[in-house]
Amino acid sequence: MGSGVEEGPEAIPHGGDLGAARRLFPAAPEPWIDLSTGINPVPYPLPPFEASALHRLPSPDDLARLKTAAAEAYGAPDADHVAAAPGTQILIEILPRLIARETRVAVVGPTYAEHAAAWTRGGHAVEVVPDLAGAEGAGVVVAVSPNNPDGRLFAPHELRRAVAPGGLAVLDQAFADLEAIEPAAPGPGLVVLRSFGKTFGLAGLRLGFALAEPALVARLEAALGPWAVSGPAIAAGCRALPDADWRRAAAAARGHDAARLDRMILRSCGRVIGGTVLFRTAVFGDAPGLFRRLGEAGLYVRRFPERPDELRFGLPPDKAAWCRLSRILK
Amino acid sequence: MGSGVEEGPEAIPHGGDLGAARRLFPAAPEPWIDLSTGINPVPYPLPPFEASALHRLPSPDDLARLKTAAAEAYGAPDADHVAAAPGTQILIEILPRLIARETRVAVVGPTYAEHAAAWTRGGHAVEVVPDLAGAEGAGVVVAVSPNNPDGRLFAPHELRRAVAPGGLAVLDQAFADLEAIEPAAPGPGLVVLRSFGKTFGLAGLRLGFALAEPALVARLEAALGPWAVSGPAIAAGCRALPDADWRRAAAAARGHDAARLDRMILRSCGRVIGGTVLFRTAVFGDAPGLFRRLGEAGLYVRRFPERPDELRFGLPPDKAAWCRLSRILK
Repeated sequence: MGSGVEEGPEAIPHGGDLGAARRLFPAAPEPWIDLSTGINPVPYPLPPFEASALHRLPSPDDLARLKTAAAEAYGAPDADHVAAAPGTQILIEILPRLIARETRVAVVGPTYAEHAAAWTRGGHAVEVVPDLAGAEGAGVVVAVSPNNPDGRLFAPHELRRAVAPGGLAVLDQAFADLEAIEPAAPGPGLVVLRSFGKTFGLAGLRLGFALAEPALVARLEAALGPWAVSGPAIAAGCRALPDADWRRAAAAARGHDAARLDRMILRSCGRVIGGTVLFRTAVFGDAPGLFRRLGEAGLYVRRFPERPDELRFGLPPDKAAWCRLSRILK
Repeated sequence: MGSGVEEGPEAIPHGGDLGAARRLFPAAPEPWIDLSTGINPVPYPLPPFEASALHRLPSPDDLARLKTAAAEAYGAPDADHVAAAPGTQILIEILPRLIARETRVAVVGPTYAEHAAAWTRGGHAVEVVPDLAGAEGAGVVVAVSPNNPDGRLFAPHELRRAVAPGGLAVLDQAFADLEAIEPAAPGPGLVVLRSFGKTFGLAGLRLGFALAEPALVARLEAALGPWAVSGPAIAAGCRALPDADWRRAAAAARGHDAARLDRMILRSCGRVIGGTVLFRTAVFGDAPGLFRRLGEAGLYVRRFPERPDELRFGLPPDKAAWCRLSRILK
């Protein structure tokens, strides 16, 4: 390539990669049980997609319907306060590039690693700080609430207080939908990220949202270009987002699962340090040993190279998975 | 928003927006027949998606399979020369941001308007030039081949000759798959864009590719982030891309359709100035009048505000659509 194109960065490891699990534990029984993500294991029941969702370019009217449904579900004033994207990940990639001058960015961590990586790639001076006090006065403050992996909560007004005047607060609420917390309305200097795929167990469809002031929404949409969200994702969003009954029932059922998982972890002498109703993070006396025993039994959980005593467990999807997990966590 | 976030640009009008057609011609009969795009109206026959394609995050192994299938279908050396994206549009958005210093960009036009717009948004000095001679010495040269809307062809070596040493040639082959032209292999300083949705009639799924040197592919993938391509798009790509028989039959059938459309246009005193097997562009004595008569009959074709004597026709999808078109083009 020409000298004008810069070097590519290293990829960050993520959960959900069963290929990696199989390479680590080639003798493990199939099918693997993937507990390495925080995706709802009981997906929203979708009907088959209409042919037009696959064949036609998604129309501006389709997108407007999706954005209206998202505004209502997430407590944003209207569709103009919503940018829809093929997953929140790409919004995380785009946000740093919308701020032209180099800015001091504070990411409250440890948290989802792509935030700090994206702001660094965007040419900003990034610091991972342990709490909002450490973020004080930064031009951009990023927090995940509830935080991944420890479940810490941050309120929008706390973020906005920490950020410098005229700056931007980024509140990633990817795991908020099934929690008993107030939705964060977008406002001046605040962008809220929401994940459709985790809540509704439809991560393969790729759908996420940014809630923000219309001027910032317009900039995000310009960076995505037209037709960024697929027809199937629009159809699924328009159907599932207004279904408050399903969301309430899912929150209750997954809350029950999360409590059951906590009891199992406790029984195996783990100490749950936090999480959400979609995942639990725990400290173990021999976390690497437990990771290996789980892997050899075909159960893939999330480990953190930088915190080797922690493991994160997603929710088992069915009775067989609960049984298999129970046999190891004993 | 904070002063650090810049203003958003105006959206470019596109084909495929039947909502716009309905607002223009509220009394037209339903269903509308959309001839305003260049999407294959006879889609690849897909089986229903497996549940895991919707529910799980697309895995690195899934993506690798898709990229291998694309490399084979498009004549790239291997998967490392392929970046997969949710449509080529977002690759068009990203490319300009990978070149840090302001560069002279020549776009051979008239052509698909998003190229010049994206390079302008990326902070570069963009010129739309009538031919490759006009592009001589530019740091970036962009051409669509076959060109939309006039079908002009540009060979990779011609683009690379026009571009300044160390620069980048962008060859958008969105409409090349069903044409009798050699595939353009990526090479140093050349990026080739390919569109899955147009060829296979699956535009709603959002899938497109960049073929380039591995270093540029890595930069594009970093800007997209992980999981940019949905599970359904990966499944469809892995199934349809290797199906050379289907592609050959589609090229023949759509070529036949295109010739039939040319005869109809000729009969109505239009002069076909070019196109591909997926669309035909023609000049008419009273193009605005014909656009209106078509619209009133529920047929939406593409017009070009800057070239009011031209109309572009996509292929009618079925017998009823051919009949309705035939009644107006007489």
